[in-house]
Amino acid sequence: MVKDEVLSKAAKAREASRSMGSLSASVKDEALIVMAKELIERSGEIIAANKIDMAKGKERGLSKALLDRLLLTKERVVEMAAGLRAIAGLPDPVGEVISMWKRPNGLQIGKMRVAIGVIGIIYEARPNVTVDAAGLCLKTGNAVVLRGGSEAINSNKAIAKIISEAAVKAGVPDGAIQLIETTDREAVNILLKLNEYLDILIPRGGAGLIQTVVKNATVPVIETGVGNCHVYVDNEADLEMAKRIVINAKTQRPGVCNAMETLLVHKETAAGLLPDLLNTLKNEYKVEIRGCPATRKLVKWVKKVTEDDYYTEFLDLIMAVKVVDGLREAVDHIYKYGTKHSEAIITTNYNKARRFLQDIDAAAVYVNASTRFTDGFQFGFGAEIGISTQKLHARGPMGLAELTTIKYIIYGEGQVRK
Amino acid sequence: MVKDEVLSKAAKAREASRSMGSLSASVKDEALIVMAKELIERSGEIIAANKIDMAKGKERGLSKALLDRLLLTKERVVEMAAGLRAIAGLPDPVGEVISMWKRPNGLQIGKMRVAIGVIGIIYEARPNVTVDAAGLCLKTGNAVVLRGGSEAINSNKAIAKIISEAAVKAGVPDGAIQLIETTDREAVNILLKLNEYLDILIPRGGAGLIQTVVKNATVPVIETGVGNCHVYVDNEADLEMAKRIVINAKTQRPGVCNAMETLLVHKETAAGLLPDLLNTLKNEYKVEIRGCPATRKLVKWVKKVTEDDYYTEFLDLIMAVKVVDGLREAVDHIYKYGTKHSEAIITTNYNKARRFLQDIDAAAVYVNASTRFTDGFQFGFGAEIGISTQKLHARGPMGLAELTTIKYIIYGEGQVRK
Repeated sequence: MVKDEVLSKAAKAREASRSMGSLSASVKDEALIVMAKELIERSGEIIAANKIDMAKGKERGLSKALLDRLLLTKERVVEMAAGLRAIAGLPDPVGEVISMWKRPNGLQIGKMRVAIGVIGIIYEARPNVTVDAAGLCLKTGNAVVLRGGSEAINSNKAIAKIISEAAVKAGVPDGAIQLIETTDREAVNILLKLNEYLDILIPRGGAGLIQTVVKNATVPVIETGVGNCHVYVDNEADLEMAKRIVINAKTQRPGVCNAMETLLVHKETAAGLLPDLLNTLKNEYKVEIRGCPATRKLVKWVKKVTEDDYYTEFLDLIMAVKVVDGLREAVDHIYKYGTKHSEAIITTNYNKARRFLQDIDAAAVYVNASTRFTDGFQFGFGAEIGISTQKLHARGPMGLAELTTIKYIIYGEGQVRK
Repeated sequence: MVKDEVLSKAAKAREASRSMGSLSASVKDEALIVMAKELIERSGEIIAANKIDMAKGKERGLSKALLDRLLLTKERVVEMAAGLRAIAGLPDPVGEVISMWKRPNGLQIGKMRVAIGVIGIIYEARPNVTVDAAGLCLKTGNAVVLRGGSEAINSNKAIAKIISEAAVKAGVPDGAIQLIETTDREAVNILLKLNEYLDILIPRGGAGLIQTVVKNATVPVIETGVGNCHVYVDNEADLEMAKRIVINAKTQRPGVCNAMETLLVHKETAAGLLPDLLNTLKNEYKVEIRGCPATRKLVKWVKKVTEDDYYTEFLDLIMAVKVVDGLREAVDHIYKYGTKHSEAIITTNYNKARRFLQDIDAAAVYVNASTRFTDGFQFGFGAEIGISTQKLHARGPMGLAELTTIKYIIYGEGQVRK
């Protein structure tokens, strides 16, 4: 029965996707706007459904943080609607001919951006992903099969019903937005191997979910998420700037993937930087500091760091600190412990800035700026479906273009191959 | 023991890849030229090793076609060397900044092409893949782990030894080109799940190999290969052109993925086109024709086509023919039976040309040209590692750019996130 639901919904999405790739931008944008409108008009239904999820969540003993992610208020529904309107305002990537050239035999070859087809999204508690993902997929001409967390199932059902009805009303093919309603975990296992109907899978959530998907899927996956990010403060650096950036990278929003987890400091800078910086982080920002022996010599109250800490994405007000011999050791540390997400150097030295940009293998490499900028909006893409930490297809913040593929279009006049 | 070899070679490739991404173009190109030179100078070693493979192949009863693919002559070694020199002559894709923009906060963000890291190639009998793949990976700053077919193991060992020694001599880090020497199949299973050391896997070979890799790999895969391609001749078409293109698409090289397998003909064109065309294909090109009832009414000697035939990539001088009601039925047929590789329409009608280009979901869609052009050299990319039939990362002929990924480089002056 689980299988029946998953297969029939995925098949409907596949069928819808056949005509979605050629939907005009005006139909898609109108649909997004109608979806936004109906979300607000029917927010009562959503909030009522969400109340059921919240009550069950409390019964089940979900953490306060998780319950907060799950909660939907009128205000949050308005925010979701605003997100859809913002997507409507972006240029349509589908149909863009990225390049076109002529071959000596007269063939004219163009590389055109087209919809991918059917995208599967597997995500956890936050019901706003239902709206975001559906909006981004619709804008890019893709059908979507959504599989949210069981905690949010009632909220997700209410949301999916409203937005898919609104989309159809605006001329989007029926079937374009599919929500898997069963909370049976078997549904995920089926989706992971549904190569017949799904073109790609994007997991959004914690490391556990992402690893399950990556290790078991036969459908191509875009891996998002884990960010064990570093800031390296060189011996030639503006120390005031270094402090500002480290504090921002650690504390501005510690629970996200582009927050800094380990601070690396040149040995000549440590004495001038660490006492003041670490005291500020502890006293003003309540950050727990775990340091190497050299750090602890300079700042006595710092806890002992472990090898495990260097591997850890704390996602919390906790950070590791290590004093290093110089750029080489910093780069080696990041190579060993990092997750190739976002890495920063603070330096005034031209050559070291260049070397860091060159030698660090990560989605985003910064000179003199906070790692917190790795984000679709901050990069100017206007919206994102996640931040890819893999090297295939998309790397870093994934905007609309990353939800498309290309096809070659070739104009001939009878050419045959010799 | 198998595991030891695979792990230690993959680890060496990983280590080499750390510095390969920043090799200068001149070192890489010099290495390619030295590799080409030594292949020719030491061709005796290669041909001697190949003789062993050929003798074993005959003993094992390999088909004539397979033995021909396996055979290396002085001439073929010279061709392989020429391939390396051609790669040396192409522009280096690594380090290209594809775009760069400035954000309102002053951050300057660039999208830079960089090496992927370590690429695993799993391939079958043809030993020239060893040279091609190693050359393309080296040019793009990637280390490569090669796993060829057991039939060619002696040839592959001789080739890999020569080219990796030559590369090191020219300044490429030792370990950049790794050949798995054991012929135990377990080696493939290990490679498929070696996410720690391999960034991507590219299978090159028959449908069986590709499916095994796609279904079992946890390392991201670029799927290449299967091409069930169609030519649709519209009722408004230049029939002389149609004949020329159909004959070319079917017969110019029937054993490759971009050859036509099924001809679709508008019902109003069938009588004018098929008798003459099919007789020519049969008599002059020895093509076996399997047709639908309408085709067989027009040309009596045509064999009965089966549903299975429509699904089949014959890779041989065999083709299916179907008479259709028009563009709509042609598109539906291609959607149902095609493999999204290369599809062509022959028409003089502007609107139908546009509709075909729009509605067909394939790597390459042609108007009035042979499907045989889907190829890195024909598209002007200069070299290719294969033709991707998936939608993620690369689609169609994969040139040098498709063997790279990107990283974002961000120049700041102290920016923090608000």
